[in-house]
Amino acid sequence: MIHTDAVVIGAGPAGLFQVFQLGLLGLQAHVVDALPEPGGQCVALYPDKPIYDIPGVPACTGRSLTAQLLEQAAPFLDASRMHLGQQVAQLEVADAVPLGQHRFTVHTTQGETFSARAVFVAAGAGAFVPRELALPGLQGRPANLHHHLNHQNVQHDDATTPAPWAGQHLTVAGGGDEALQAVLSLLEAPANQAPARISLLHRRDQFQAEPALDTAVRNAMQQGRVQLVLGVPQGVQQADDGRLLSIELAQANGPHTHPTDHLLVQLGLSPKLGPLADWGLPMARKQVSVDPATFASGVPGVYAVGDINTYPGKKRLLLCAFHEATLAAHAAAALLNPEAPQHLLYTTTSPLLLQRLGRA
Amino acid sequence: MIHTDAVVIGAGPAGLFQVFQLGLLGLQAHVVDALPEPGGQCVALYPDKPIYDIPGVPACTGRSLTAQLLEQAAPFLDASRMHLGQQVAQLEVADAVPLGQHRFTVHTTQGETFSARAVFVAAGAGAFVPRELALPGLQGRPANLHHHLNHQNVQHDDATTPAPWAGQHLTVAGGGDEALQAVLSLLEAPANQAPARISLLHRRDQFQAEPALDTAVRNAMQQGRVQLVLGVPQGVQQADDGRLLSIELAQANGPHTHPTDHLLVQLGLSPKLGPLADWGLPMARKQVSVDPATFASGVPGVYAVGDINTYPGKKRLLLCAFHEATLAAHAAAALLNPEAPQHLLYTTTSPLLLQRLGRA
Repeated sequence: MIHTDAVVIGAGPAGLFQVFQLGLLGLQAHVVDALPEPGGQCVALYPDKPIYDIPGVPACTGRSLTAQLLEQAAPFLDASRMHLGQQVAQLEVADAVPLGQHRFTVHTTQGETFSARAVFVAAGAGAFVPRELALPGLQGRPANLHHHLNHQNVQHDDATTPAPWAGQHLTVAGGGDEALQAVLSLLEAPANQAPARISLLHRRDQFQAEPALDTAVRNAMQQGRVQLVLGVPQGVQQADDGRLLSIELAQANGPHTHPTDHLLVQLGLSPKLGPLADWGLPMARKQVSVDPATFASGVPGVYAVGDINTYPGKKRLLLCAFHEATLAAHAAAALLNPEAPQHLLYTTTSPLLLQRLGRA
Repeated sequence: MIHTDAVVIGAGPAGLFQVFQLGLLGLQAHVVDALPEPGGQCVALYPDKPIYDIPGVPACTGRSLTAQLLEQAAPFLDASRMHLGQQVAQLEVADAVPLGQHRFTVHTTQGETFSARAVFVAAGAGAFVPRELALPGLQGRPANLHHHLNHQNVQHDDATTPAPWAGQHLTVAGGGDEALQAVLSLLEAPANQAPARISLLHRRDQFQAEPALDTAVRNAMQQGRVQLVLGVPQGVQQADDGRLLSIELAQANGPHTHPTDHLLVQLGLSPKLGPLADWGLPMARKQVSVDPATFASGVPGVYAVGDINTYPGKKRLLLCAFHEATLAAHAAAALLNPEAPQHLLYTTTSPLLLQRLGRA
C-alpha cells in the first residue's frame, strides 16, 4: 500500500498539471493511467497534429505539449509516482472520520493500492481501452481472440518468442488506420511472427484510413497477399476448449461462414468510463458535476478536472483544464491543511515555491 | 469613430489572449492600454523575472510570455488595433435596444472613440499611471512639476529641444530604481538636457533599489555631483503664476525650506482603477463581480477577466485569466451571434479555425 497525499487518475495534460499544482502547494501525488505512456488522448489520438490555442504557446503538438508538461511537473513527478498501463478499479472512502482527516483507498487493475487524502479525477473521456468487435453468442474469452496489436509488437527484430498466429490463418478485423497498419506490419514480420495467410474483415469495401495505408493494403490485396472479407458478424463457432473456429457473417448475398485460426480485433482505442461510473459521484451525461469554485465533486475530497467534469459554461479545452486543476489543488490544500496560510504565492517571488521547484 | 466588434481594455496577458480567443470566434477587437507597450504589469513591473507556472511553459519571463502571446494573437492584432499610451475615460451604452444589438461608445484620454458591441475589461489592478508625491497645500499643476521621466527621455542623442531644467536646479523625488536611474541618466545627459545642479529628495538615507544603481548614486553623492536632501514634504511655496518655488520639509532636526527650480517625481508606476469605478459595474473591493460561467459583469455585454474580476474561488493567476478570457469570448459570441452554431471547434481539427489563424 502506497501512502500519499493525492491520487490523480489520468496522466493526460490535465492530470500532469494537477500534479504540478499540488506539488507547488506541498502536496505529493501519484498518477494512474490506463495507457502505457503519459499524455492521454493528446498522445493516443493526435500526437503530431498541431494545437494553436495553448496560451503563450503559438503552436505545439499533443506530444510536444506532453513533453513540456512532464518537464514542468518533473520536480514533483518521477517514474516511481507514475503508474501506467493500469486502471483505477475501485475507490473506497472511510467516511466516519471528520472531513480533512478522511483517507481514500484506491485499487488499480494491476493490484496496486493507494491510501490517499484526496483523489483528482482527470480521466478525460475515460480510460482508453481497445474497442471490441460485437460477436453475438461468444462464450468467454477465447485464447485465439486478440485485441489491439501495437505496431512494434510484430516489428521487433529480437522477438524470439513466436507469435501465436505464426504460420496460421489470421483474420484482422477493422477498416481504419489501426487495422491497415497491423496488416502491413504482419506482412513485413519475421517468419516466427508472420501468419501464413491474412484475411482483413470489414463491413464494407472502403477504408477510413490514411491514403498511404489504404494504397499499400490495396496493393497487397491485388497481389493476393491479403484477402478482403466483407460482412458483419452474426455469430461464432467455438471448440470445446472455447477456441474460436469460425465467424458467421451477414453478407450482401446472404450468410457466410468464415473459418479462421486467430482473430485480431484492430478497431482502435475507445474511452470507457469504467468503474468510475459506480463511485457514487453525482454525474450528468457521463460527466462529473463539479462546483466551479473548487472543482470538487459531490464526494468531499474527490475533485474532477478536464474533459471528465461539467459545470455551467464548461468548454472542453486544455487551457480550461489547467485552470480547473489549479483551483482544485488550492481547494484541496485548504481542506487538507486548514492551518496553512491561504494567501496566494507566486512562482516569480515566493522563496518557498522556488525551493519546491528546485530553483531556489 | 472606430467601429468594431469588441474593445478590450488592457494589453496585458489577459487582454492579449482575449483578442486571440475573440479572433478564433470571428470577432474583431481593438485594445487600449495606458502603458506605452503591451504586456501590462508583467512587462511594467517584472519583465525579466522568471515565471514557472504557465501550463506547458516550464520557464518564461514577463517579457518572453508577452512576446509569445503577441505572436499567438498576431492573426487578429496588428498595430492599427493597438491603442497604447491612453486610458479609457468613458463608457456609454445605449440601453434602449434589444440585448445583442446594443452598442457601446468608448472614449479614450487621447480622444479616440470606438463603437463596439462588447467590452472586455482586462485592466489588471487598473491603469498604470505615475505615482504622485503628496505635496500638502499645492495649488493646480505647476509647470515646473514633472512626473515619471523615462530613461530614454534624457539619453536621446538627437534631442534638439532643451529640457526645461537645462542649466537649472532640479530636485528628483524618490528612493527606488526609478529615481536613482533618473539621477544617473541626468548626470550623463547632454548639455541641453542636463541640470546645473541635482538634488535627490527622499524621506530617509536608505534606498530601495538595485545594488548597482545604489552604488553609482552614492559615488555621485561623494563626488558632490548629487546632493541628498532628507525629509517629508509638509507644504510648498508657489509663485503668482503657480510655479513651485520651494518645498517645506519636516527633517529630523526641525523644518527646512528646500528651494528648487524644478521637481521631478520619480516614484514609479501605480495602478489606478480610474474612471472604471464609475461605470456602474457591480464591484466588490475594487474588483468587478462576474459570473464564472460567462465572466459577464452586471452590465450585459461587458465582461471582466484577469486580476480585475472576482468570483467564488478566484485566484489571481495568469493561467486563470486565460480560462476566463476564453469563456468570456464564447459567451460574447453566443450573445452577439445567436444564430451561429454553438458547438465547440478545435484548432487541431477545424478548417474554419485554421483559416482564421492563417494556417489553412
